[in-house]
Amino acid sequence: MRTNPLNVGIIGAGRIGKVHAEGLAFRLPEARILAIADVNREAAQAVATRCGIPTVAESSQQILANPEIEAVLICSSTDTHAGLIVQAARAGKHIFCEKPISHSLGEIHRALEAVERAGIKLQIGFNRRFDANFARVRQAVVSGEIGTPRLMHIISRDPAPPPLAYIRSSGGIFLDMTIHDFDMARFLIGDEVEEIYTSGGVMVDPEIGAAGDLDTALIVLRFKNGVIGTIDNSRQAAYGYDQRVEILGSRGSIGTQNCYPNQAVVSTATEVRRDLPLNFFMDRYTESFVSEVRAFVTAVREDGPTPVAGIDGLVAVVMAIAARQSYEQHRPVRLDEIAAPVR
Amino acid sequence: MRTNPLNVGIIGAGRIGKVHAEGLAFRLPEARILAIADVNREAAQAVATRCGIPTVAESSQQILANPEIEAVLICSSTDTHAGLIVQAARAGKHIFCEKPISHSLGEIHRALEAVERAGIKLQIGFNRRFDANFARVRQAVVSGEIGTPRLMHIISRDPAPPPLAYIRSSGGIFLDMTIHDFDMARFLIGDEVEEIYTSGGVMVDPEIGAAGDLDTALIVLRFKNGVIGTIDNSRQAAYGYDQRVEILGSRGSIGTQNCYPNQAVVSTATEVRRDLPLNFFMDRYTESFVSEVRAFVTAVREDGPTPVAGIDGLVAVVMAIAARQSYEQHRPVRLDEIAAPVR
Amino acid sequence: MRTNPLNVGIIGAGRIGKVHAEGLAFRLPEARILAIADVNREAAQAVATRCGIPTVAESSQQILANPEIEAVLICSSTDTHAGLIVQAARAGKHIFCEKPISHSLGEIHRALEAVERAGIKLQIGFNRRFDANFARVRQAVVSGEIGTPRLMHIISRDPAPPPLAYIRSSGGIFLDMTIHDFDMARFLIGDEVEEIYTSGGVMVDPEIGAAGDLDTALIVLRFKNGVIGTIDNSRQAAYGYDQRVEILGSRGSIGTQNCYPNQAVVSTATEVRRDLPLNFFMDRYTESFVSEVRAFVTAVREDGPTPVAGIDGLVAVVMAIAARQSYEQHRPVRLDEIAAPVR
Amino acid sequence: MRTNPLNVGIIGAGRIGKVHAEGLAFRLPEARILAIADVNREAAQAVATRCGIPTVAESSQQILANPEIEAVLICSSTDTHAGLIVQAARAGKHIFCEKPISHSLGEIHRALEAVERAGIKLQIGFNRRFDANFARVRQAVVSGEIGTPRLMHIISRDPAPPPLAYIRSSGGIFLDMTIHDFDMARFLIGDEVEEIYTSGGVMVDPEIGAAGDLDTALIVLRFKNGVIGTIDNSRQAAYGYDQRVEILGSRGSIGTQNCYPNQAVVSTATEVRRDLPLNFFMDRYTESFVSEVRAFVTAVREDGPTPVAGIDGLVAVVMAIAARQSYEQHRPVRLDEIAAPVR
Repeated sequence: MRTNPLNVGIIGAGRIGKVHAEGLAFRLPEARILAIADVNREAAQAVATRCGIPTVAESSQQILANPEIEAVLICSSTDTHAGLIVQAARAGKHIFCEKPISHSLGEIHRALEAVERAGIKLQIGFNRRFDANFARVRQAVVSGEIGTPRLMHIISRDPAPPPLAYIRSSGGIFLDMTIHDFDMARFLIGDEVEEIYTSGGVMVDPEIGAAGDLDTALIVLRFKNGVIGTIDNSRQAAYGYDQRVEILGSRGSIGTQNCYPNQAVVSTATEVRRDLPLNFFMDRYTESFVSEVRAFVTAVREDGPTPVAGIDGLVAVVMAIAARQSYEQHRPVRLDEIAAPVR
Repeated sequence: MRTNPLNVGIIGAGRIGKVHAEGLAFRLPEARILAIADVNREAAQAVATRCGIPTVAESSQQILANPEIEAVLICSSTDTHAGLIVQAARAGKHIFCEKPISHSLGEIHRALEAVERAGIKLQIGFNRRFDANFARVRQAVVSGEIGTPRLMHIISRDPAPPPLAYIRSSGGIFLDMTIHDFDMARFLIGDEVEEIYTSGGVMVDPEIGAAGDLDTALIVLRFKNGVIGTIDNSRQAAYGYDQRVEILGSRGSIGTQNCYPNQAVVSTATEVRRDLPLNFFMDRYTESFVSEVRAFVTAVREDGPTPVAGIDGLVAVVMAIAARQSYEQHRPVRLDEIAAPVR
Repeated sequence: MRTNPLNVGIIGAGRIGKVHAEGLAFRLPEARILAIADVNREAAQAVATRCGIPTVAESSQQILANPEIEAVLICSSTDTHAGLIVQAARAGKHIFCEKPISHSLGEIHRALEAVERAGIKLQIGFNRRFDANFARVRQAVVSGEIGTPRLMHIISRDPAPPPLAYIRSSGGIFLDMTIHDFDMARFLIGDEVEEIYTSGGVMVDPEIGAAGDLDTALIVLRFKNGVIGTIDNSRQAAYGYDQRVEILGSRGSIGTQNCYPNQAVVSTATEVRRDLPLNFFMDRYTESFVSEVRAFVTAVREDGPTPVAGIDGLVAVVMAIAARQSYEQHRPVRLDEIAAPVR
Repeated sequence: MRTNPLNVGIIGAGRIGKVHAEGLAFRLPEARILAIADVNREAAQAVATRCGIPTVAESSQQILANPEIEAVLICSSTDTHAGLIVQAARAGKHIFCEKPISHSLGEIHRALEAVERAGIKLQIGFNRRFDANFARVRQAVVSGEIGTPRLMHIISRDPAPPPLAYIRSSGGIFLDMTIHDFDMARFLIGDEVEEIYTSGGVMVDPEIGAAGDLDTALIVLRFKNGVIGTIDNSRQAAYGYDQRVEILGSRGSIGTQNCYPNQAVVSTATEVRRDLPLNFFMDRYTESFVSEVRAFVTAVREDGPTPVAGIDGLVAVVMAIAARQSYEQHRPVRLDEIAAPVR
C-alpha cells in the first residue's frame, strides 16, 4: 500500500474551503496540501498561513497545471463547479467537489462525461452521509436490524434564513438546502425515488417569497421499492439547527435525536431543561467534513471507488427540480418527467 | 350548581362500552348508570354485575324510553350510531357517541339535524383530545409558547392490524384509524383543513390490500391558515403502539414522546434499553376515556357546551373521504370537493 | 375462591385515610367500606359522603366492635398506631397500618406480638414497593437481569419542608421521610442492612435545626451481602418531588427517572425544556396507594401472606434509629448495636 | 501577543504521550514539538514519525538540555514524575505533568518547591475539568443557576479492571482511579474537602483483593462549606465507561448523562434501545485532552496562570491517602489528620 501522502490542491478559500484545508492540515496526515487558490487572494493567503500551505496559487489554472498535484478540492462558488470539474478531469486530477455540481442538468451531464472520459475519481461533498448518527441509521437498514423500510422522515431545519442575496442566486430552497436531504433519503433507503410531491409556503419572511423562493416545505417521496418518505424543511427554527431522521421498518424503527454541546440537564423551580442543540452545520457536522475528505483521500490512494459518486450529485439536482415543479404545478411529479438533457 | 348525579344509560357493552361503564361506576361519582343494553344480553349482564348497574335493558329502545335517564352513551357498532342519535335526540336524551358517527355523510347530516332540532347536547368520542400529552401540545399553541404554528406531524401506528373481517366493514384505514388523527390535527392547530394529499400502500399484509384497504399511509394536510401537516399511519409497528405529535412554530417547537409502563433504563453489556411503550389504546389512553366522559357529564350537569361537538364528528369523516379520494386519484383533493349531501 | 367483597373499616379520615377510602370505593370492587371513624367527626362524614360509606362510627372502638368488619385500615396519627394494632388484633381484625408503626421499639414489639398471638394479617403501608418503577427495578434484581447487585443509590427529595410543628412531633427526618427509603433499600436488594453511616446537615432552614432535626442527609448502608447503598435525602428540591433509584450489578445497571405529567418537550430560542416532574407523593404514587390496598385485600380474601409484613415496619424503625445515632456520634453504627427492647 | 509557536518536548511515548503528541501535532498549531523521548526508543520513533517530530531524543535529559525547548510534557510512568518535575524546573522549562505527581507526599512537596523556586509554570493533567459536560456543571455552580450547592454525586466506573500488575504498582484504586474524582469534586464545588468516609469492597475479582486493593468503593466527602458529596467507583461496569455527576443546589439541580457514539434509538419487538456509551477515556475524553494542552500552551504563551496548579495535584493525593485510611480504620478521617510531610 502507498505510504507517501496524497498531494492535493484546494480551489476556493471560503468557509468550506477553509474547513477542508484545516481538516487536511491538522487531521489527515495521509494528505498534503501543496497549493490553494481563491479569487480573493487575501483569503487564500490567510488559509495558507493558518494551515502551513506552501503555495498560494495565482489561479485555479495554476493548480491544475501543477504536475505534482494529484487531486483537487473544488470549494469555489457553485457556478464554477461544472467548468472546473471539466478542466480538472482533462488535467487528470482526481476531484472532490462541493454540492451542487450545477443548477443545470446539461452542465452536470457534461461534467460527468468529462470525468468518465478522463477515468479519474470524483466525489461529491454530501458530508452528512459520514455523520455518525445517519451512518448508524443506514447501518440499521443494511443489517436488517429494523427489517424492510416502510416509512422514512427527515427533519432538516436551519436556525435562520441565509441572506436574501444568497437566496436569489442559490437556485432556491430545494437546490441550496433540501439537496442534502434528497441525498440523505437515497443514502438511507438505498433506493431511487420515483415521484415527488411538494407542499410549501412562505411563513418565515415575505421577502423570501418576493425573491421567488419558499422558506417552509414538506416534500413527499415515493421510492421505487414502495417506501414513502417525507422531508420537513424550514429556513428558521427558533431553537437552532434541527437535523433528525426516522425510519419505520417491518421489524422496528430507528430514529435519531439532535446533537448537543453537553449532556447536562438542569432542573429548576420552573422547568427541566437542557442547552440548545449544536447550532449550525459547522458544529453539528464537524467530524463528517473530516471523514468525507478522509474517505476521498483513501479512495484515491488505494484506488478504490469514492463513496459518493457523480451520479449522486446528478440525481439530487433532478430531485430538486422535480420538487420545485411539483410545488409550482400542485401535483405529484415523477422523476422521469424531468427532461433528460441532450448529451 | 346541581349536586345530584347525572342518570345515564349505556347502549353497547362491548370493549368501549365496558370501559365507559367502569369509568362511570368507579371514577365518576357525579354520574350514575341506571341501565345498560346490548344485543348480546350476556355481555350487558356481565358489565352490569361488575359495575353495579341495576338494570340490564331489553333493548336500546327501553333505555331511551326510561324517563329517569337523562343521557345516553352510544357504544354500539358504527352502523347503528346515526340511527341511535336520531332516536335519542327525539327522546330528549343528551348523547355521547363513539366515533365515527357514520360512514355516510347523508346519515351524519340527518343525525346532526335531529340533534339540533332537539336542542340536546352531543359529544363525539374523540378521547385523544383529553390525553395529557396532546392537551399539553394544544396548550402550547393556544398560549403562544411556540408562536404561530407552521408544520405539524402526527405519528399514529398500531401494534398490529385488526382482523380482516373488521377491515372489510370498518370503512378502511382512513375511517377506522386515521379518523382519530384527523380530529387531532384540527384540535392541535385549531383551524380547518383545506386540502389533503395521500400517499400510501400495502406493506404489512397483502390480504389487507385484497380487502380493498391500505395498511400504510402518509397524508399531507394543508390548513386554511397555511400550516402544513402530515399524518403517518401504519397498521403495524413491531415495537407496539406509537402515538406522537410535533409542531414547529415561529417561536419554537413542541413534541411528545410515547408513554411507557415505567421509567427504568437498563444498561447491559450489549445495549442501553427500556421496556416497550404502553402497548395499545386501552393502556395508553386509559385516563382520557375517563376524562372525556367526565367532560360530557359536566357539560350536561352544568349546561355548558360539550368539548367535542357534532361538527367535529362530521368533518373528520369528510377528511377521511377526501384522503381516500386523493389516494385513488393520485392528486391533492380539496375538502370542498367532497359532495355536500342533500340536506 | 371467595367472591363476596371484603368488609373493611377505616380508622382515620385525614389525607391518607381519604386516599384509601377513595381507592376502596372507586377502584377496588373486591372490598366494601362499612364504616369510617375519625376524632374529627366532620372529616369522617365528608369522606363517607364522598365515598358512599354507610356508617360514620363514633370511635375506632365502635369499628373494632363491629362483627361484620373483617379488616381495618389504620390511618390515624402515628402515636395511635401501635395501640390500635394491639386492639384490632385482639378483636380479630386483619390490619393494614400506615407507617411508621411507632417511634418506640418497645411499642412495635408489643404490637407485633399481639398480631402474632391473634394470628391475623398485618400489612404496613410502604406503598412505594407497589410503584411500577421500583417494582421494575426489583424485578431486574430478582430475575438476574443485572447480575449480582454491588452498589445502590436512592434519591428521595421532597419539594418543600413540612411545617415545623410536624417536624417537632414526627421523630425527625429519619423517621418521617427516610423510613420509606430504608424500606425501599431492603426491598430492592432483598437483604438486610448491617451498618449505617450518616452525614447530614441543616442547609434548607435553620429553624429545622433549631427544632433538633436535619433537612439534608446522606446515608451509607452496608448490607450483609456486601452491597453498598446510599440514600440522598433533602427536605427541599426547587424543582419538586425527586424519587429515583439506581443499582449497579455484575451484569449491568438499572436506574429510574422521575415521572412527569406529560411527555412533551418544548424547544425555544433559549432552551429545550419539559414540565416539572409530578410534584408530590399524592400524584407520583397515586397508583401505588391503590395497589397496596388491593394486595392487602387479596391477601385477606385468599388467605395468603401480606407483601409487607410487621417485621418490615420494625426494621425500618431500627434503621432510622441507627441512622440518627450515626449522625450524632459521627461514626458508622451497626444495626445490632440498637438496643433490643425488653419484650 | 506572541505569534510564534511554543516549542515543546515530550517525555514519554506511551498511550497518553501519544495522545498529547497527536493533539499538539494535528490540533494545536500554536505549539511545535521539537523532540520526544522514551525509555522504549522504538515507541518514541513511531510517535515521531506519525506526528512529524524532528528529533527522537536519547533521554529526557537531552530534552531538558535543549535550549530551544520552552516547555515539557511529562507523560512517563508515575514514579518518574516528581524527579522529572524537579529537573525540568531547574532547567527552567514550563511543565505539564500527568497525574498523580507521586504517591509520596514528601516527593510532591519537593517537586512543588522546585517549581516555586524556578518560577516556572506547572499544570497537572486533570483533563476532565476540560470536558464539556463537567465544565457546564461547574458553570451552573459559578453562575448561581442552581443556587448554593448542597449535595453532590460523582459516578465513575471503568468498563473493566486494569491488569493486576498495574494494580500492584498503581497505589490502588484511590490513587489510580478515584484521584480524578477527587479533583472533579473540588473543581465542581470550588471548595476544599474536610473529611472523608470510605466504604468499599472486593466485588469484581478476588485477585484484586489479594493484591491488596479494592474494586468497588463509595466515598463520602464533607466539604468545608458543608456540602456533602459521594463518589461511586467500580472497576467494572458491564455496559462500559460510566462518567456522570449531579449537584443539588438551593435553586435546582444539574446532572449529566453519559456520552454516546450516536443519538440513534432503535425500537424493536422486545425493547427500545440505544448503543452503549463511549467505551473508555480515550473516546470519552478525546476533546478534553486537546483542551487541557491548549490551555497549558496558552498559559505559557500569554504568561497567565495554568488552570490546574501544583496544589491541585497535591490535594488529590492527600484525599486518596485519607480515603484509604478511612477504609482501613473504618471511620471518617479528616484531611488534616494526614501527616504533613517533612519539608
